[in-house]
Amino acid sequence: MSAVTSTRIVLASRPDGEPTTDNFRTETIELPELSDGQVLLRTVYLSLDPYMRGRMSAAESYADPVEVGDVMVGATVSQVLESRSPQVAAGSYVLAYSGWQTRAVVDDNTVRVLDPSAAPLSTALGVLGMPGFTAYSGLLKIGRPQPGETVVVAAASGPVGSAVGQIAKIYGARAVGIAGGPDKCAFVQGELGFDAAIDHRAPDFAEQLRAAVPDGIDVYFENVGGSVTAAVLPLLNLYARIPVCGLVSQYNAATAPEGPDRLPGFMGLVLTKSLTVRGFIQSEFVREMYEDFERDASRWIAEGRLKYREDVVHGLDNAPPAFLGMLRGKNFGKLVVRVGPEE
Amino acid sequence: MSAVTSTRIVLASRPDGEPTTDNFRTETIELPELSDGQVLLRTVYLSLDPYMRGRMSAAESYADPVEVGDVMVGATVSQVLESRSPQVAAGSYVLAYSGWQTRAVVDDNTVRVLDPSAAPLSTALGVLGMPGFTAYSGLLKIGRPQPGETVVVAAASGPVGSAVGQIAKIYGARAVGIAGGPDKCAFVQGELGFDAAIDHRAPDFAEQLRAAVPDGIDVYFENVGGSVTAAVLPLLNLYARIPVCGLVSQYNAATAPEGPDRLPGFMGLVLTKSLTVRGFIQSEFVREMYEDFERDASRWIAEGRLKYREDVVHGLDNAPPAFLGMLRGKNFGKLVVRVGPEE
Repeated sequence: MSAVTSTRIVLASRPDGEPTTDNFRTETIELPELSDGQVLLRTVYLSLDPYMRGRMSAAESYADPVEVGDVMVGATVSQVLESRSPQVAAGSYVLAYSGWQTRAVVDDNTVRVLDPSAAPLSTALGVLGMPGFTAYSGLLKIGRPQPGETVVVAAASGPVGSAVGQIAKIYGARAVGIAGGPDKCAFVQGELGFDAAIDHRAPDFAEQLRAAVPDGIDVYFENVGGSVTAAVLPLLNLYARIPVCGLVSQYNAATAPEGPDRLPGFMGLVLTKSLTVRGFIQSEFVREMYEDFERDASRWIAEGRLKYREDVVHGLDNAPPAFLGMLRGKNFGKLVVRVGPEE
Repeated sequence: MSAVTSTRIVLASRPDGEPTTDNFRTETIELPELSDGQVLLRTVYLSLDPYMRGRMSAAESYADPVEVGDVMVGATVSQVLESRSPQVAAGSYVLAYSGWQTRAVVDDNTVRVLDPSAAPLSTALGVLGMPGFTAYSGLLKIGRPQPGETVVVAAASGPVGSAVGQIAKIYGARAVGIAGGPDKCAFVQGELGFDAAIDHRAPDFAEQLRAAVPDGIDVYFENVGGSVTAAVLPLLNLYARIPVCGLVSQYNAATAPEGPDRLPGFMGLVLTKSLTVRGFIQSEFVREMYEDFERDASRWIAEGRLKYREDVVHGLDNAPPAFLGMLRGKNFGKLVVRVGPEE
């Protein structure tokens, strides 16, 4: 019998600054035979997320880098084609971490079976998955918004930012979103119900932001860095909290930017405003909060209080350009690649 | 009857960068008659602390600046010369916030009566006062050292740093102190019992620090900033905590230093190491922790587990040069000015 193959995208070389499509290479490999406890997966949806930029570099981070020549990592919704696991039936759909490829053989303890009738399959990669939980855990555990407080988040039409603002509203806070361009801002304010949405590309962005937060900022959910952060800092209130879950604007920087050195001024602000700045990865809070998240988020979606938008790209070949576009803010909503049909 | 006078040191002008004695002026004023509920104080000890540098500038901070022409603020141990308060008897000693002057008329609700038999009077300004409580509250509430963890603190022979390291030891952590010069380092390691003391003036300071923390740094109690912080950052462990109570090395900086801009790199570290950076002023924790502090610190002092050193300057005239010297690290121990005799 002929072996099962997988077409996959591997890291061809490490980027120096902004990555290009040359950093990726497509290849086809033969998959090994299944061992006991393993399943053969067919990828339906591949999630593309900013953290993957970090995995392309060799620099020390919270996770090991992808080795040159290895398949790019990533969460997927996949269908089980063949199973040698008593826990996972052939035909079922699972959340896996099987990466940028069309098929994969993985151990059954690395997948979680999904209920396709409970929610659209792709939401397991977005509002009901890692991005949604990043928003939920970081906002509630670190940001701790109080009724009447002001919460600011950037990339507000994206999967994390959109959930941050809506959950802040659910907890009685005022939500101000920052997004790139008038269409995204209209969506954030009109569809998602944020109290205000500011276009960071506007020449008077900093002034618009100041006007949108008349009582200052109590929680700044940091997922972009750069010029947005610079505009936020002077507006922070005493005891403001800054959960730091990402810095997408600076992931491509190969060296420290030119001066002046803003670190002393930042530390001075931390001191005089009694700020809390806390980096986190959602995995830290899984044990403590994931069940609560699934219960709350499912209910909020059913009640229409937690909306989401997906940006679906078709075909694994389009994963590299879509990923590169996301790093420049070109996606509009949670970016997923539809690698194969749902059925 | 002739009015009572006070000789006092006022802010003559705001410093531009490093302050000089020209920023201060001595004058003598007549004090007002006592009203009901007021007491007339004679200053015995005046506390000199780094935060006073902030009050000399007009920049926004957690406290209002001293106005030009106003008396410099500061905590004192004073004796009550005359009282129109039922709560505070003439002759008693009090902790007051009466500033850089020989006498003062203050409301009785701004003073706290001290027991001169319980501890040396001057300790109310140091190990049993604001600096000691800064160490206690910031370390225990934000730093949360666990047994076996490594705590690093600078200005380790000073009133805050010396308490931080000793309390860390009491809680089972490893304490590494940073101080300026071999005498201070010998005191920190030999007298205070830190596990190691590193001279930040040594040309190989960063290498010495690295060697002194083989398991990395779990808590960095930030009270100096500058080059010490730069050496600490690469050594921080995952989930490290940084209570920020002061930045004495940068208080005199009039503008942001030249680049490169280290803020993006710092935020990247916050993210990849899941750091907690938290500015604080001890007053935030008074209600919650001050009673515990007084009980614990008194017991630790009695048991010989919490030692302290004072650097006593004689005469109010010497307050300005002593203060300026402190900003350059010239004091050795808690700096107090003996303004008048204890009896």
